[in-house]
Amino acid sequence: MASAEYSSVVQPLLTDLYQISMAYAYWKNNKHQDQSAFDLYFRKNPFDGEFTLFAGLEECLKFVRDYRFQQSDIDYLRTVLPSYVENEFYEYLIQLDMKDMKIYSIPEGSVVFPRIPLLRIEGPIIKAQLLETTLLALVNFASLVATNAARFRATTGSDKTFHEFGLRRAQGPDGALSASKYCYLGGFDGTSNVLAGKLFGIPVKGTHAHAYVSSYKTMDDLKLRELRDQTTGEVRPFAQMCVDYLEKLVPILGFILDEANSGELAAFISYAIAFPTGFLGLVDTYDVLKSGVPNFLAVALALHECHYQAIGLRLDSGDLAYLSLEVRDRFTRTSVAFNIPTIKTLTIVASNDINENILMSLEKQQHAIDTFGIGTHLVTCQKQPALGCVYKLVELNGSPRIKLSQDISKVTIPGRKNLFRLYGQDGKALCDLMTKMDEEEPKARTRILCRHPFLEKKRAYVTPSSVHAMYNLYWTDGEIRHPLPTWEEARKFAQEQIQSLRKDHIRNLNPTPYKVSVTDELYSFMHQLWIESVPIGELS
Amino acid sequence: MASAEYSSVVQPLLTDLYQISMAYAYWKNNKHQDQSAFDLYFRKNPFDGEFTLFAGLEECLKFVRDYRFQQSDIDYLRTVLPSYVENEFYEYLIQLDMKDMKIYSIPEGSVVFPRIPLLRIEGPIIKAQLLETTLLALVNFASLVATNAARFRATTGSDKTFHEFGLRRAQGPDGALSASKYCYLGGFDGTSNVLAGKLFGIPVKGTHAHAYVSSYKTMDDLKLRELRDQTTGEVRPFAQMCVDYLEKLVPILGFILDEANSGELAAFISYAIAFPTGFLGLVDTYDVLKSGVPNFLAVALALHECHYQAIGLRLDSGDLAYLSLEVRDRFTRTSVAFNIPTIKTLTIVASNDINENILMSLEKQQHAIDTFGIGTHLVTCQKQPALGCVYKLVELNGSPRIKLSQDISKVTIPGRKNLFRLYGQDGKALCDLMTKMDEEEPKARTRILCRHPFLEKKRAYVTPSSVHAMYNLYWTDGEIRHPLPTWEEARKFAQEQIQSLRKDHIRNLNPTPYKVSVTDELYSFMHQLWIESVPIGELS
Repeated sequence: MASAEYSSVVQPLLTDLYQISMAYAYWKNNKHQDQSAFDLYFRKNPFDGEFTLFAGLEECLKFVRDYRFQQSDIDYLRTVLPSYVENEFYEYLIQLDMKDMKIYSIPEGSVVFPRIPLLRIEGPIIKAQLLETTLLALVNFASLVATNAARFRATTGSDKTFHEFGLRRAQGPDGALSASKYCYLGGFDGTSNVLAGKLFGIPVKGTHAHAYVSSYKTMDDLKLRELRDQTTGEVRPFAQMCVDYLEKLVPILGFILDEANSGELAAFISYAIAFPTGFLGLVDTYDVLKSGVPNFLAVALALHECHYQAIGLRLDSGDLAYLSLEVRDRFTRTSVAFNIPTIKTLTIVASNDINENILMSLEKQQHAIDTFGIGTHLVTCQKQPALGCVYKLVELNGSPRIKLSQDISKVTIPGRKNLFRLYGQDGKALCDLMTKMDEEEPKARTRILCRHPFLEKKRAYVTPSSVHAMYNLYWTDGEIRHPLPTWEEARKFAQEQIQSLRKDHIRNLNPTPYKVSVTDELYSFMHQLWIESVPIGELS
Repeated sequence: MASAEYSSVVQPLLTDLYQISMAYAYWKNNKHQDQSAFDLYFRKNPFDGEFTLFAGLEECLKFVRDYRFQQSDIDYLRTVLPSYVENEFYEYLIQLDMKDMKIYSIPEGSVVFPRIPLLRIEGPIIKAQLLETTLLALVNFASLVATNAARFRATTGSDKTFHEFGLRRAQGPDGALSASKYCYLGGFDGTSNVLAGKLFGIPVKGTHAHAYVSSYKTMDDLKLRELRDQTTGEVRPFAQMCVDYLEKLVPILGFILDEANSGELAAFISYAIAFPTGFLGLVDTYDVLKSGVPNFLAVALALHECHYQAIGLRLDSGDLAYLSLEVRDRFTRTSVAFNIPTIKTLTIVASNDINENILMSLEKQQHAIDTFGIGTHLVTCQKQPALGCVYKLVELNGSPRIKLSQDISKVTIPGRKNLFRLYGQDGKALCDLMTKMDEEEPKARTRILCRHPFLEKKRAYVTPSSVHAMYNLYWTDGEIRHPLPTWEEARKFAQEQIQSLRKDHIRNLNPTPYKVSVTDELYSFMHQLWIESVPIGELS
């Protein structure tokens, strides 16, 4: 899997101060070796959806593997904590590592749901708490943005291509890198972020900007005007060929020659001379239909005559559905007029402030866009900019802990638990089932009573065709024990995971909730503990 | 100013691929040395507000100073660009630096407005474009989150304290660090993020979490029960003293002893033994008024008897306005009953998913909160998770460029410009004024015609009491020439900048727009260029 060495900020001090304060209080009270189990989970799917893609695991494991305070960290902590904090505590911290911790987790790229523990962290309570904030920070945004990408992806057919263009508007340089990485996991096909390409092997994409077009004012700005034919090797008068094709296009496309901006034409020509195999023109600097498209097609035709193939054009403003259809129509007319079939299917890229709703609206209208370039709203998760993963104590020294709340959704499911996904005959997931650790595993083709964790009356018998145990023990004995997939494998797995859900769980509008259930035994256990923990109120 | 060495990801490849493609196209066409000027600005204040805090400049300058491609970057680019890209281009890239660029900027922490250039980047067009994406990435989120912090800060009186608690929900680890850094600039008083404290010298804050309280089930879990009196040095039976105080509090606070959770009391006692000078109890793990507050006060009284002073308590759920008033009432009753005045003014911290609207609503109700801990909505900028800074070519080889658009707000103001802020007699800013570079500077106590840049009929004569030139030349001759403030100085400057605005520009609801104007000369110049650039349409 791709390296995460760039993230020098992922280190033990990337935590909330109270974790360090609590660590001292545990240590001071000789409670730090208490054996704890914490669940990391979220309570609500993001974006009003009914699924989430789990991401960030590899970075969590590398953080745990490399967990070591530096001397400069200790020196800094001495300036922050009171002077009476004992020296032995700092000596304890500097030698602390995570070798005696255990981390169980669902695989990265899994489809996950509210309340199921994504990770279970076991070991001395002081260490489990020192990990909390950083693990949450690593899982929260990774899962959020991967889910966002998967939602964009699910809006259209699989024949469309999606590129992430969010670097300049992302929440910090590393927010941008995380977004590029996890959008790829969520199903995007590439990114404009070159560093993400270098670090994670993600395909990088991009051509030119409006400034490139504006930098040419007239054809006189052209310093190179020739191009070598790819087949014959002959040097051709490329600029003049483009001008000639533009004139020939007038009756075919029905535009006025003077309205086609000659600076724009010069810019396209210069770009095609630099990248004859990679010509993708940005056509909306002046007027898309009166100037950009004719200029683009003139250059595409001249390239074709030189035995090159243009890639396509990009729309970055205006009514994208309408314009894409008009552009495709002009492609078709040109294709017919010059008898060049490939012109008809040139790529149309669209990239103007697209969010999920705009994408849905484009799909409802007809459009002829092949590739979407999506930036701001994808990487900053405009619709919901944070996922609310929490990290809750569920067991201490072998005794289960329950956290109560007035708000039922905030009550924790106590104890260490196993998790299974039950599949139906069609291979689609039926529901998730949590069990107590000491319960027998559910079996395929066996009827199982699945209960809602909180609502007594909600229950169902499920006879799964297959049963999948969800957890792997990833970290134990100071090593990453369970093999991690390559980043390409993780991406493929994520796509398969989404395919394993019924479509009504995935759709954007009013999706059907997926059921997360508990066994009858776990239900009884947790509700017994719950009622024992609530004192009977007194009214007078 | 604080070091930014942590951001190893801020490097030349942290850019969009099209900047590199364009660089090659400029180079190939021998256009790369064209002398350009680009303006970096935004078009709309974030959060439906009427001001923005400009931030990120120091990081921009350090990026420019250190700009160098590594050999591994070049090796990677060779795999991304077509094979016919000439070797000389890579040789050009590897030796490229930013020594012949000039960067003019407004000081970091300035209050800024739509359309005014925050930075002007001058130099060879190839270099100006290679800087674009990274400069935008560095300014966009820094300015957005600093502005968000300033808005939270402006909602309450200056006697309140604000802490940033957003690390776990931020958009990536570095998104969290940027947030901590720039929230401090925007007026916050501290952060929970320890690494931000270490790297930037920001005060770090925090105490303990619910898990700490849950980790104690009964008083039997206490391993230490004694505390040394701070004044006398005598070892006191601290746990027993707390139990005794709790009993004494029953008639004063009117709670039922059995409903005060003894695990919670044990947790508070252990925490106070570890941090006798830093006791701040989280009181909502069970029931705030029936358990948390009595337990907290019992420990606070015992600490007082041992000549320590508790700090206060934290509310993390429920009706914060109501609970804070109830808590203050109990503080007062206890203060009176035991004749300890300091109990009455113990700090009340509130921290449950607070956003700007909740803060405003708390202010409208009465509340007794002293300190706000704000996380998710602050650092991810829930109300608007991205600022839309753009980077536009305004001059090339001495000739002004204008970018037209159907949307007037997207039309650029051409040419290199100067910027002045005009102040009234009361010291408040009246308006900003852009001039052509060759115009005379506006003078104090002289009547100046200030025009709206787009609307012909909107204009006013302004006679400022003082005039401030906004730009400094920060980067020239390969050096950061203009001295940078320390981070504390930048924060102080930002607060003064906000004070320099009229209150109606700052208020949260329907603030008054601040006027950004141009001189009559600049107005005429730009509109002449505009009309020359628009071909007259033909209808038939």
